[in-house]
Amino acid sequence: MTLYIGVIGESVCDEETRRIAERVGRRLAENGAILVCGGMGGVMEAASRGATLAKGVVLGIIPGSSRKEGNPYLSVSVVTGMGEGRNIILVRSCNAIIAIGGSYGTLSEIAFAHKLGIPVVGINTWTLKRQRRIDQRIIEVPDADEAVRRALELAQKTRARIQNSGA
Amino acid sequence: MTLYIGVIGESVCDEETRRIAERVGRRLAENGAILVCGGMGGVMEAASRGATLAKGVVLGIIPGSSRKEGNPYLSVSVVTGMGEGRNIILVRSCNAIIAIGGSYGTLSEIAFAHKLGIPVVGINTWTLKRQRRIDQRIIEVPDADEAVRRALELAQKTRARIQNSGA
Amino acid sequence: MTLYIGVIGESVCDEETRRIAERVGRRLAENGAILVCGGMGGVMEAASRGATLAKGVVLGIIPGSSRKEGNPYLSVSVVTGMGEGRNIILVRSCNAIIAIGGSYGTLSEIAFAHKLGIPVVGINTWTLKRQRRIDQRIIEVPDADEAVRRALELAQKTRARIQNSGA
Amino acid sequence: MTLYIGVIGESVCDEETRRIAERVGRRLAENGAILVCGGMGGVMEAASRGATLAKGVVLGIIPGSSRKEGNPYLSVSVVTGMGEGRNIILVRSCNAIIAIGGSYGTLSEIAFAHKLGIPVVGINTWTLKRQRRIDQRIIEVPDADEAVRRALELAQKTRARIQNSGA
Repeated sequence: MTLYIGVIGESVCDEETRRIAERVGRRLAENGAILVCGGMGGVMEAASRGATLAKGVVLGIIPGSSRKEGNPYLSVSVVTGMGEGRNIILVRSCNAIIAIGGSYGTLSEIAFAHKLGIPVVGINTWTLKRQRRIDQRIIEVPDADEAVRRALELAQKTRARIQNSGA
Repeated sequence: MTLYIGVIGESVCDEETRRIAERVGRRLAENGAILVCGGMGGVMEAASRGATLAKGVVLGIIPGSSRKEGNPYLSVSVVTGMGEGRNIILVRSCNAIIAIGGSYGTLSEIAFAHKLGIPVVGINTWTLKRQRRIDQRIIEVPDADEAVRRALELAQKTRARIQNSGA
Repeated sequence: MTLYIGVIGESVCDEETRRIAERVGRRLAENGAILVCGGMGGVMEAASRGATLAKGVVLGIIPGSSRKEGNPYLSVSVVTGMGEGRNIILVRSCNAIIAIGGSYGTLSEIAFAHKLGIPVVGINTWTLKRQRRIDQRIIEVPDADEAVRRALELAQKTRARIQNSGA
Repeated sequence: MTLYIGVIGESVCDEETRRIAERVGRRLAENGAILVCGGMGGVMEAASRGATLAKGVVLGIIPGSSRKEGNPYLSVSVVTGMGEGRNIILVRSCNAIIAIGGSYGTLSEIAFAHKLGIPVVGINTWTLKRQRRIDQRIIEVPDADEAVRRALELAQKTRARIQNSGA
């Protein structure tokens, strides 16, 4: 039974972030997971590239109305035409999510994941405080390999009880 | 460059419709197309089964909020949580569409496809008249093989000029 | 308890259609209904104008990402950013719908309404045949006054049993 | 020209939060703004109540597929059937937003607002840190009156340059 793991982050990113994302993609593919992403550039493209080079499957959920907007490393893509509204579809389609850095779009996805009970593993990403107490939901990890290890473990553990668990 | 061909129709259907849908799915897979469907039963399941048995790729765009609702023949699935709102996402993701029979959900997809300029090939499906003139947009064909042949041809021809053309 | 009545049709239309739409809007306002429309020009604008001149309430469900795109006769507007995907939101928000002429966008709304069990009254609109039998769901009427009369009657009758019945 | 101000927060809340939300609703109505909310209970209901008692207009963007799910203080409601996916529609429809407390749904709306450049005023709400630096975008205020004052001011100032500026 295949696990769907989301990789989220900015559409423009620095070289180190790109390297981390590409390694996350590669490790997901090597572990047989389907990589789900927003289909665009930056972190999304780097992760897609890593997975594709390792012969994995990459599912891109594209915000615009043309498949051409997607990065060149998507195995299968969905054209939503919903702009940022596609973020919730991305989240719903995952058993766990890895956030790498990230700006406000990424934050919206983290929020939806928490709302739906889908685990989020983070590298250099947001820290959230609610009414002055730190929210501990994001599982912060130091590197790509640990991110993938934790995400797969959490995806498996939680799939049974979570709404969008694998078929 | 892969073609995305939608197969649309009712979630409950008779044996003959099921046979046609399964053959459509098989022929699409044999021709290397990605089959896109609404992920549920009836025509969607039969087409998915045909494609999967022929080792093709099936992309299911699920209306509900759980991947478990999908039929067992989806290679990759997207969990939209948007109910019938997912119909437009399905349509946008296709280079051409094959309608087999079909009720009101199918009709909404045919309408969106016409709106977006995506070709629709039909077997035993809706006939549309606007202000008393027959609308000729649906290309009616007699059987599964002809449906697939025409859909692939139209998808290829129109992909260049259509918004959601392949990457 | 307020009734929500949708008015659907093309964003560009001829003078006669415009006159009918404006009268439909006026009559809905005079009967205390909230007019729901897609917020744009043509039939939508004419109906909105009729309702606004008669001091009614007009709810516009705008496809784009800017309120400025809407016509100038909307009392309240919603900015969906979902393109044609907003059609299902429009339909879900109505107790009955009046279709005036209309092209493929209108057809998608008629299809969704039939799917959800929301009554559709039509003036000069689509005729649908399914597997060679005429589908009788659209209640064809000759003019604006009769359209409004039937729509209000059906909205009231069906509201109790329909999903999106009034608050 | 009417301003659309969103009020976001949890669907269940304590008495003090409820009092603040009701006062925010009242002050918005007294200033002629349209209050936009998610249509449900808790903060949304309290704000809607405050606005309605002060004869203001309340627009509810309902997540489910039935208008009956909405709170009883909505002047106009939209039935999206998109679940949490409706959050982005709510955000797009506002010129500024007031967050009162709030959990993950609220956080997703704050994130979308930041992404789209729509100002957010907060009372007792989230604090965000990105890669260890505090994000200063949320304008934290001490009480309801100040929240409304700042939200109206920001809405006016930014409306001209923002995508979904008033008609």
